[in-house]
Amino acid sequence: MSPDGETTLGIVGGGQLGRMLGEAASPLGVEVIVVDPTPNPPAAPVASDWITAEFDDEAAFRKLANRVDCLTYEIELVDPDALQVAAETADIPVHPAPESLRITQDKLLEKRTLDEAGIPVPDYRAVDSQADLRDAFEELGRPLMLKARQGGYDGRGNAPVETVDDAIDAFGNCQGLIAESFVDFDRELSVMGVAGRSETGTFPTVENIHREEILRQTVAPARTADSVRDRAGGIATDILELLPGRGVFGIELFEVDGTVLVNEIAPRPHNSGHYTIEAAVTSQFDAHIRAVLGWPLGSTALRDVAVMANLLGSVDESQPVNLSGTERILETPGAALHWYGKREVYQLRKMGHVTCIPPAGPDHESLLPLARELATQVHYC
Amino acid sequence: MSPDGETTLGIVGGGQLGRMLGEAASPLGVEVIVVDPTPNPPAAPVASDWITAEFDDEAAFRKLANRVDCLTYEIELVDPDALQVAAETADIPVHPAPESLRITQDKLLEKRTLDEAGIPVPDYRAVDSQADLRDAFEELGRPLMLKARQGGYDGRGNAPVETVDDAIDAFGNCQGLIAESFVDFDRELSVMGVAGRSETGTFPTVENIHREEILRQTVAPARTADSVRDRAGGIATDILELLPGRGVFGIELFEVDGTVLVNEIAPRPHNSGHYTIEAAVTSQFDAHIRAVLGWPLGSTALRDVAVMANLLGSVDESQPVNLSGTERILETPGAALHWYGKREVYQLRKMGHVTCIPPAGPDHESLLPLARELATQVHYC
Repeated sequence: MSPDGETTLGIVGGGQLGRMLGEAASPLGVEVIVVDPTPNPPAAPVASDWITAEFDDEAAFRKLANRVDCLTYEIELVDPDALQVAAETADIPVHPAPESLRITQDKLLEKRTLDEAGIPVPDYRAVDSQADLRDAFEELGRPLMLKARQGGYDGRGNAPVETVDDAIDAFGNCQGLIAESFVDFDRELSVMGVAGRSETGTFPTVENIHREEILRQTVAPARTADSVRDRAGGIATDILELLPGRGVFGIELFEVDGTVLVNEIAPRPHNSGHYTIEAAVTSQFDAHIRAVLGWPLGSTALRDVAVMANLLGSVDESQPVNLSGTERILETPGAALHWYGKREVYQLRKMGHVTCIPPAGPDHESLLPLARELATQVHYC
Repeated sequence: MSPDGETTLGIVGGGQLGRMLGEAASPLGVEVIVVDPTPNPPAAPVASDWITAEFDDEAAFRKLANRVDCLTYEIELVDPDALQVAAETADIPVHPAPESLRITQDKLLEKRTLDEAGIPVPDYRAVDSQADLRDAFEELGRPLMLKARQGGYDGRGNAPVETVDDAIDAFGNCQGLIAESFVDFDRELSVMGVAGRSETGTFPTVENIHREEILRQTVAPARTADSVRDRAGGIATDILELLPGRGVFGIELFEVDGTVLVNEIAPRPHNSGHYTIEAAVTSQFDAHIRAVLGWPLGSTALRDVAVMANLLGSVDESQPVNLSGTERILETPGAALHWYGKREVYQLRKMGHVTCIPPAGPDHESLLPLARELATQVHYC
């Protein structure tokens, strides 16, 4: 496939990642069609068309596959088998490979795959019974970070536990879990890696600030030692060689005492890579499209330091959006608004983000408080 | 109006300018609906919907106006009366004001308006007969630049003439024309000016390289004296105060012996402003949307030097596109491809553009030959 001026990409998932993929696709002359369970999803305005279907609807994936040149996905809840069958039936590629989705959908399989390849991860144990959990406490200490092997997203399905009772409170039982040693990290880092047809690239190592397991801000590049940043980038490159298929992979890491451990991997563009739209030569969305289509990846170099702050729903209960307070973002030179067009807001829902580059401030120390403050100005109801 | 998360902009014209407006609208949470005589026009993939209608179809404009919060246009061939009636009937704003369209649609009225406001323009005379033309030769010398008052676009309807016979050859008769003294300019410049609700801004003064009256490359900022760049920016600010309504105005100028004369004005984003997508803090498309909606304009400052090269059709006769040769653009770090998705190519048709910023090269002297060469690699059939 080459940039022939008539390329259509099928994207399973039509949320904000699909929307930003659509925004990046258009300058490349690529049209997108999205599949999402929600009618008129966030990606719809920048998609040529959308199909309303669940993320395991093989018939819908087949319909999509017949209309596009390549399949990809922007959410890890997609059924990899349905995706694979649809792509094979239509004889088109799907990237990243469904196998990468299978690995990263299962936190135990993901950790084992990394571990066996010599990539550093926190100590972990499979937990399928109370006895397993007791063994894990014995071997890994307390507290443990206990996670559902499947279906976790944005920290849902994760809980630190001190006792078997804590685990039963959080998960109902002790089956289908992975226990990880609790990492008292100095910093959370991430790297967007991108695998192309014959090249790989890594965007700069960035620093992520979470609260309540939700990403609040990303600081690019990370405020840490060069050696740590380089180590994280090196691990990302190793992971790109390990996981099959092309595309952007969002790789989350912990920095502990100057070393780096992999936390988890998303086989798709990632919230902590949004800063690349303004701050890198090629954005993660642009890079993902180029990668899945087998085109040259472009440069992953940083143009400017940046801080990204999420605009998160802050409401008592789910309700229609009534947006206000974005003026401060719009009037701040170097602050860029990204509004995802969601019509309903709920607590901590990702509604948009703001990225600050110079001229908003010369460095991290001025950009971080500014981005935080601009985000707090926005109200959703 | 405020950025309330549910804003829809109606754009008359769905060509590449509409497409790039759609790309810029999405991050701001703004949806667009376009009107264009061509079904599925270039802007369609990034528009929520499109309406197929001619540029003087008042009924279609009314339909559009009933579905949007504000009207704008991206082509100067639009009927200003139809636009005004549609906006008034739906009780929504239209920007820039139809009056600005009326002025700039008529090259004589445009020159007079500027001249009477003390803004420097080449000497000119109205020509409605052979006698007028003979007087013009007498007063302004030979050759004259003769232009149709109405309907010109990309140099069509312009011709240098030495005699009355030349004029009849070029225009059929000597009516509805404007004669301008032939300007032996040192450089062609332009400035994108933007008028907002309570502020105006000007993007840097850039240098334009034309051949056969078609823009080939833009060099940003212009390689000329600071005093000339400042003078051009000052004139642009004066023009923003003179022409009614909000939005981006593309202002083309001649540099002659260190002075600056206005050539013509487009009340819309302009080909010579495309470099702003990569090279300015806010792009001309972003600025236009903010302006017409009455939102803060953002910063018009340059982030990096840039050179933009148009990708122009180079074919003997109109035919379906079969694109090749964009790989060099995609693999050059700092070169950004913009493909407009047109399905037919004809000679000198604007098919796309490429913008080069550092790291493609550190300065104008390396970026200009690179951008030119990248453009020549692209083939359309």
